[in-house]
Amino acid sequence: MAKKPNAFYAQSGGVTAVINASACGVIEAARKHSDRIGKLYAGRNGILGALTEDLIDTSKESDAAIRALRHTPAGAFGSARYKLKSLEQNRTEYERLIEVFRAHDIRYFFYNGGGDSQDTAHKVSQIGEQLGYPIVCVGVPKTVDNDLPVTDCCPGFGSVAKYVATSIREAAFDVASMAKTSTRVFVLEVMGRHAGWITAACGLAAEKPGQAPHVLLFPEIPFAQEKFLARVDETVKQKGYCVIGVSEGLRDPSGRFLSESGLRDAFGHAQLGGVAPVIANLVREQLGHKYHWAVADYLQRAARHIASKTDVAQAYAMGKAAVEFALRGHNAVMPIIVRTSSRPYAWKVGMVPLAEVANREKMLPRDFITPDGFGITAKCRRYLEPLIAGEDFPPFKNGLPDYVTLRNIAVPKKLKTTFKV
Amino acid sequence: MAKKPNAFYAQSGGVTAVINASACGVIEAARKHSDRIGKLYAGRNGILGALTEDLIDTSKESDAAIRALRHTPAGAFGSARYKLKSLEQNRTEYERLIEVFRAHDIRYFFYNGGGDSQDTAHKVSQIGEQLGYPIVCVGVPKTVDNDLPVTDCCPGFGSVAKYVATSIREAAFDVASMAKTSTRVFVLEVMGRHAGWITAACGLAAEKPGQAPHVLLFPEIPFAQEKFLARVDETVKQKGYCVIGVSEGLRDPSGRFLSESGLRDAFGHAQLGGVAPVIANLVREQLGHKYHWAVADYLQRAARHIASKTDVAQAYAMGKAAVEFALRGHNAVMPIIVRTSSRPYAWKVGMVPLAEVANREKMLPRDFITPDGFGITAKCRRYLEPLIAGEDFPPFKNGLPDYVTLRNIAVPKKLKTTFKV
Repeated sequence: MAKKPNAFYAQSGGVTAVINASACGVIEAARKHSDRIGKLYAGRNGILGALTEDLIDTSKESDAAIRALRHTPAGAFGSARYKLKSLEQNRTEYERLIEVFRAHDIRYFFYNGGGDSQDTAHKVSQIGEQLGYPIVCVGVPKTVDNDLPVTDCCPGFGSVAKYVATSIREAAFDVASMAKTSTRVFVLEVMGRHAGWITAACGLAAEKPGQAPHVLLFPEIPFAQEKFLARVDETVKQKGYCVIGVSEGLRDPSGRFLSESGLRDAFGHAQLGGVAPVIANLVREQLGHKYHWAVADYLQRAARHIASKTDVAQAYAMGKAAVEFALRGHNAVMPIIVRTSSRPYAWKVGMVPLAEVANREKMLPRDFITPDGFGITAKCRRYLEPLIAGEDFPPFKNGLPDYVTLRNIAVPKKLKTTFKV
Repeated sequence: MAKKPNAFYAQSGGVTAVINASACGVIEAARKHSDRIGKLYAGRNGILGALTEDLIDTSKESDAAIRALRHTPAGAFGSARYKLKSLEQNRTEYERLIEVFRAHDIRYFFYNGGGDSQDTAHKVSQIGEQLGYPIVCVGVPKTVDNDLPVTDCCPGFGSVAKYVATSIREAAFDVASMAKTSTRVFVLEVMGRHAGWITAACGLAAEKPGQAPHVLLFPEIPFAQEKFLARVDETVKQKGYCVIGVSEGLRDPSGRFLSESGLRDAFGHAQLGGVAPVIANLVREQLGHKYHWAVADYLQRAARHIASKTDVAQAYAMGKAAVEFALRGHNAVMPIIVRTSSRPYAWKVGMVPLAEVANREKMLPRDFITPDGFGITAKCRRYLEPLIAGEDFPPFKNGLPDYVTLRNIAVPKKLKTTFKV
């Protein structure tokens, strides 16, 4: 019997609450097809693991540990913010990947990431052919930013969306209680430097007109200071308080990030990041209201405890489908989520060539934002609502979510050469 | 049949994820004893509602709505940051309270708050006697800060503790995934300006030595910059990353809040608040590590979605006991939580005179903090662990927690006089 080829899986870019659910889907599908796939190796710290021949042998993990990945946030094998250059600029890196794959008889490459990563996966499939080492490359979509094209949504986004909508609703209840004698304006800063999908998700907390959040500040809409202050003032007068969701990527009309608008410490050191304090301070300076602000940062994308059941299911399905596509002979493709109906929500797994998703960003459409630029439309709500539907609580132990840490045992190196990244 | 006396309930100070569970306990107990208590009125915006005769008739709320208070965060009737002055300084305010109580035949006063509020409740009981209008005053403990004396813990704290421990664990998984090529230091700022209980709760996320969080910065321990930086550097070298939990109330050795250490915007305006960015910036300036920081702010105390089941049960029990104490003839007392065993955890309802809880703060004992000042001891863990035990998820609708907003119908005024607060 011929030796079965091995497979390689790597996580890329910023991690999410459900990227490990995709890993779970890949690994469980590979185990199911052990007649055709030998070992599934994972890259320690993503693609760096391939470049430096630091591979993790996932076969050393128990079925229970792999199953637990489905409810564990972040990247169980380590991820990397490492973008391979173009083939022309750094052909050596691609050749090194093929060298490592060849040494370990890796014939399948599953790359779990956003647009940049799908571009890399696409290039690896091309270089493999050129070097006479055909490798099947299948992407697995992932990004909290929801900015991948073609797919209806991206695994990772639904859970952040559920987190921010839940959090801003809860904080709004708090502010409403306190507004008579204390805080009147609350600002929550959320992720999404270029695309306003997460900011839009804050809007789900308001089920009826006039409910909080009252103002959303999108990265797609240049910050109009006077109009914003007028809206806040009007809201405080009408409701007694005002709740604001703001994107970390909010820019002024000249295109400069508001978070870089000149905050300095006592020593004159450059800004510390955070647009929420900038907005909150503006409100205080110009309107005099007492404020509070929160910056959710990693809390939002790691919040597996409040993950969307839909998101978890889709993340798992994408991982599983990637393996099935590869085994059916598809190459340089990525599974996607195809929405077949919004109400009731229904979706299925589709497929797209990597060439079509690489390096393209999907912004929030203008008709998802209200004409005044401060809210979401009914069309946006119809799109977003199903993505946060359902709960998928992790198991708890001693009062805390019981997340798995894998053994991550290294595969013995076969190459004598090292590679400096 | 003689007319039954009415009761008054008010929420005071910063709200919590479970103060409405206490309200639920008070109202359900009062309804159960409708043979002895007439109407239960709530103060709109806390004690302000009594002073301005703006009372809410809770009898207009359905049983289902009152039941839903148990899973709804924040203050359903509005709370207030309003501290009554001493009897000598502003006797008029106390006399006004009695005037309103007399007009509405209110003979029971349930005050749901922290140390200041219990002091107020105590004074109201005294002035009532002096003015020939005996009123039964029973406190209901509440504070996320866990700083009330005598009671083993305070309703509100357990849920914040569960939130911060969960959040810092999740963020730590994220940072661990990214540390090879990106963020190495993560800072989470938590509440507790004077007492380090919430900071300590972050430590629950680390079940084994060496696990995150690696450094805790307590308000009780003056910030030792060099020692802190050395610890962070050592941790990054050993683990590859470092996760830090810091109290908003961290002070430098001269006693000044670090959050006030001179942050200014481009126009030279005073600081914006937030110790997390100050700590993160220090790490970057001195050690050069890439960082992220989060400020949970109201998100932590409003996070009913991840409330502690123990905390919810205790909050409800305190409200219920307050009514039962009053009906048994106790006055100027407060129910407390008495721990009878830590492992397995067991507790019962106790009672304390208000005079003993008023205006006293319970700090984190020094032997709950490790000798180096950066962690919690086994003794602290044994105390904290039971308080976050168990989950009590709210119902969800359309993917979000389904919280109740009451009708809050006003009781017709009976007095011709108004009162300016």
